[in-house]
Amino acid sequence: MSSTEVTSMPGLDTAADLAAQLRVDSIRSSTSAGSGHPTSSMSAADLLAVLVSRHLRYDWDDPGSALNDHLIFSKGHASPLLYSVFRAVGVVSEDELINGYRRFGQRLEGHPTPVLPWVDVATGSLGQGLPDGVGVALAGRYLDKLPYRVWVLCGDSELAEGSVWEALDKASHYQLSNLIVMVDVNRLGQSGPTDLGWNVDAYARRTGAFGARVITIDGHDLSAIDTAMSEAEAGTAGEQPTVILARTIKGRGFSEVENKEGWHGRPFPPDMAQRAIAELGGVRNLTIRGPRPEHDAAGAAPAAPAADAQMPEYAVGDKVATRKAYGDALVALGAADPTVVALDGEVKNSTFAQEFATAYPGRYFEMYIAEQQMVAAATGLAVRGYKPFASTFAAFFTRAYDFIRMGAISARDIRLAGSHAGVEIGADGPSQMALEDLAMMRAVEGSTVLYPADGTSTAALVKAMAGTPGISYMRTTRGAYPGLYPAGEAFPVGGSKVLRSGPEDAVTLVGAGVTLHECLRAADRLAGEGIHARVIDCYSVKPVDTATLAAAAWATAGRLVIAEDHHPEGGLGEAVTGALVAAGLEDLAIAHLAVREMPGSGSGAELLAWAGIDADHIAIAARQLASR
Amino acid sequence: MSSTEVTSMPGLDTAADLAAQLRVDSIRSSTSAGSGHPTSSMSAADLLAVLVSRHLRYDWDDPGSALNDHLIFSKGHASPLLYSVFRAVGVVSEDELINGYRRFGQRLEGHPTPVLPWVDVATGSLGQGLPDGVGVALAGRYLDKLPYRVWVLCGDSELAEGSVWEALDKASHYQLSNLIVMVDVNRLGQSGPTDLGWNVDAYARRTGAFGARVITIDGHDLSAIDTAMSEAEAGTAGEQPTVILARTIKGRGFSEVENKEGWHGRPFPPDMAQRAIAELGGVRNLTIRGPRPEHDAAGAAPAAPAADAQMPEYAVGDKVATRKAYGDALVALGAADPTVVALDGEVKNSTFAQEFATAYPGRYFEMYIAEQQMVAAATGLAVRGYKPFASTFAAFFTRAYDFIRMGAISARDIRLAGSHAGVEIGADGPSQMALEDLAMMRAVEGSTVLYPADGTSTAALVKAMAGTPGISYMRTTRGAYPGLYPAGEAFPVGGSKVLRSGPEDAVTLVGAGVTLHECLRAADRLAGEGIHARVIDCYSVKPVDTATLAAAAWATAGRLVIAEDHHPEGGLGEAVTGALVAAGLEDLAIAHLAVREMPGSGSGAELLAWAGIDADHIAIAARQLASR
Repeated sequence: MSSTEVTSMPGLDTAADLAAQLRVDSIRSSTSAGSGHPTSSMSAADLLAVLVSRHLRYDWDDPGSALNDHLIFSKGHASPLLYSVFRAVGVVSEDELINGYRRFGQRLEGHPTPVLPWVDVATGSLGQGLPDGVGVALAGRYLDKLPYRVWVLCGDSELAEGSVWEALDKASHYQLSNLIVMVDVNRLGQSGPTDLGWNVDAYARRTGAFGARVITIDGHDLSAIDTAMSEAEAGTAGEQPTVILARTIKGRGFSEVENKEGWHGRPFPPDMAQRAIAELGGVRNLTIRGPRPEHDAAGAAPAAPAADAQMPEYAVGDKVATRKAYGDALVALGAADPTVVALDGEVKNSTFAQEFATAYPGRYFEMYIAEQQMVAAATGLAVRGYKPFASTFAAFFTRAYDFIRMGAISARDIRLAGSHAGVEIGADGPSQMALEDLAMMRAVEGSTVLYPADGTSTAALVKAMAGTPGISYMRTTRGAYPGLYPAGEAFPVGGSKVLRSGPEDAVTLVGAGVTLHECLRAADRLAGEGIHARVIDCYSVKPVDTATLAAAAWATAGRLVIAEDHHPEGGLGEAVTGALVAAGLEDLAIAHLAVREMPGSGSGAELLAWAGIDADHIAIAARQLASR
Repeated sequence: MSSTEVTSMPGLDTAADLAAQLRVDSIRSSTSAGSGHPTSSMSAADLLAVLVSRHLRYDWDDPGSALNDHLIFSKGHASPLLYSVFRAVGVVSEDELINGYRRFGQRLEGHPTPVLPWVDVATGSLGQGLPDGVGVALAGRYLDKLPYRVWVLCGDSELAEGSVWEALDKASHYQLSNLIVMVDVNRLGQSGPTDLGWNVDAYARRTGAFGARVITIDGHDLSAIDTAMSEAEAGTAGEQPTVILARTIKGRGFSEVENKEGWHGRPFPPDMAQRAIAELGGVRNLTIRGPRPEHDAAGAAPAAPAADAQMPEYAVGDKVATRKAYGDALVALGAADPTVVALDGEVKNSTFAQEFATAYPGRYFEMYIAEQQMVAAATGLAVRGYKPFASTFAAFFTRAYDFIRMGAISARDIRLAGSHAGVEIGADGPSQMALEDLAMMRAVEGSTVLYPADGTSTAALVKAMAGTPGISYMRTTRGAYPGLYPAGEAFPVGGSKVLRSGPEDAVTLVGAGVTLHECLRAADRLAGEGIHARVIDCYSVKPVDTATLAAAAWATAGRLVIAEDHHPEGGLGEAVTGALVAAGLEDLAIAHLAVREMPGSGSGAELLAWAGIDADHIAIAARQLASR
């Protein structure tokens, strides 16, 4: 790894001035806003002052540079400190800092988001910045192969989140020596002292046991901070992440609140703020730039633009599980696009991510059974421009819902594939059956939710996901079902397919995935009875194809049967019903078939029948509607 | 702590026979079912044989006894082993084990659930049984004050889940010496070797650093197992949980598969099964009973039946935040019912759980920032008959969605309260704004979702939650709003309130929580323009009050404005629309106002306006509908 070109290197006396300014500005901005976390910012101000002036290699004029170090505030509530740093390096004005913080329509939000070009990921739900940072560090070490470091500021309270330990476990497993975690051990959480208080030794034992090199310091001793950071940097050629445990004082620098309970998340009233600023030596107007990355570092990944992927083809009638088609399609995408990467939660032989892992081992990251870290790593990889596809059983994405939600706020494009959805999986029982995933994924802002029924549509939609912004989710099925579409058929996101239709259609059957096959069987049976049913493959659950659905509803006198292998709330049924009502359809007669009780084990067929979502029940509902 | 009355104590030679039987029966049941996890059962068979025959104090004829030890299979996929234990103690027949396992309509499901009386909690989503066990152990030590122990069998793969570390952190913090964790370190996960393989020392460092007393053994040495369990029991008067790290061999006992990859979750074909059974010495028919708890142990909590709670009262017009009313109501419930307990994720001063913590410190459990463990602890406390109320910011329940889902499968009654919902919270920004919680909670099987708008309704509904089965969720609001209902008004779950109505109503406004107040303001404004609006407080989002909503839709020519501080998917709008369509309402004209983009910071009022869900936008939508 090449050495750093230091364009400027302020001394520790300057860092001390900077630290005072960061505290003062944290106070000014939060008092002006009337909300925010000054004391949580003040405890970490010395760490940030030394880091920004002497260690962080960052070209503030080019935040998009692949060569920059990364700075992630896992304790996102210390946003006054982060924004004060932005002022100190000259990218945010004093006016914006003081008068824009937490205001409507402004970019200095209560917790940092990538609305700001210097922010990689949204934080504020604790225990997420570090897992995200692991993803960025994975990109740095294994994909970009660039010498940037990932600096993460954690609070001590958030070490209670299990996700932090998932992150450290992966950081040591993947030898992420480019990851440096600074823990601001200020002893006080929101509502009282933390579990471990100032027991820095306990944190040292824990982080050490999880494979980190641990450096313990007084977090207000600038010289100690500087030495620790230099040691951490020296170690970046090594094999371990570094954790700097900094014993600090909450509210440090203002004697009235130092180390006192009751000051979390409370700005100082103006009179107190005035006294605090005076105690800290008054307002400063230091502008400071620390080291920049050297500009001749090789490469600036992600590499080569994608070729047009040649997707796998499946014949009509041939049986294939959509999870298998997902695996095939991912390999095809990977062949065409070197920025496609895959992750899995130790079920890759079930999700078929294994095919990608075998074909492109350098672009596959095994996250073991740590779904939170898996989604966070995907978010971190997306920060560096990669196209992550993360897979596990659909049910287990519930474990990562907060991370998915925060991924959306981070405005990163991540792709999730959940296999083994619904009661169709059969014998394994309810713990393994995703019956909430469509609701969960639909409710994410800006998300796309796909549920293909055959190999051809799966392949086309996996390809579409590569270019889909935001959170995109594909639900795949355990069992193999016959191909419905010829190779090459187009499946636009937001579309649907009309598989049966005619001028005499009396009822519309709407299905997706496994229930589409049941709808087709029901339609065949109904046809034998002289009841013509239109059948729609609603493979795009969000956005839903309102136009086609409305036309079908219109053509069949408002009669629809909607069948889904999901609980009735928030899934296909409510999506379709809501869309039709919003489209102004009148006189709707909808039979909504869904899983309305707690399933047990059984065969897929037994359970589809038990739930009332198989061809028999669809046909019964259709007959009732048709005779209306 | 009193000594154990040993009703029988088989020797280790008998345990060896039992272990062979458990392996054989695990093979027979899974081969017969055609699915299941024999090799994961075989690695832990020796642990279970010694435990069940010599250490677990359990009256198999009285699984409901408060005195019984608890046995939780956190590695739920080892269900063949658990069910083979049930056969060995004589509570499940050979026929049921062999022919019922994983079959439709049978109780021996693919992963254990409390459909079986000897199973406390559903497992199968990994990393949950241990956190649940922490909840049971909390009950034992702090509430029941009974000498039962909680034995948890974990797999090594699942130690990758952060929730395991949340659990150990809490177990040591709360000095749960009654918790004994057995880790089956068989080195092999589903799709390959685990992260740490047989590096038992690494596990020892980690679990030790998290505060456990660690005992490392060969998991196939019956004598070593026996000694370790005795040591663990001796320690139950101490201050630490015990972790027994057992180095084991996956598939142990059948040489063809021992320690081999590719055999996870695969039953042996019949010919292999035959060879395996032969190698294990053939089918056995041992019935064995180990020690029982002594029957004279004092008490059998939970204690005293609840008195009728005197709920707090709020005057119409007086402003109160529903989160404050939640805190008040919880204290009132706690006064009347000694089985009410509370938990919080270190935001108790925001959720107002602090009031309960102050009033009943012995029944309050601080879970720090560990939402997964918080919900799991609630589930574990419910196992022992307590009525847990767990609170955090509504947004952060997304962190625990898998645990909520599994809580439902566990059929335990747990109560969740999420504060600071929606854009109304203002300056903190999107990471703190729950905009997916209604969708998430509605999609849980058998759940109840409540969203009161004032203090009186909050108090009534908190009281109702105490008697509500399954997962019940209350969404509370940050800001204070005027009281709408006089004290004593009834708020049945599944009901609603019509706050404005008259013979000339032209449009119905449906709101809940914060948007109800906006609906009322809009109605007042519309009334000034001569447009009469019916206003409905839809405080019960699930179940929704279809009858009242349908009557209103009928009375107002199908015209409804539904406003919600939530993303449009899966929340109030889809619940109401779906219910009206299902009820056969025709000619609906619904304006659905919801948060359709990513919010930033601002004041609550600014953000309600920005999202288009304030009184202005409700009035605009109502005017448009009324002029239709």
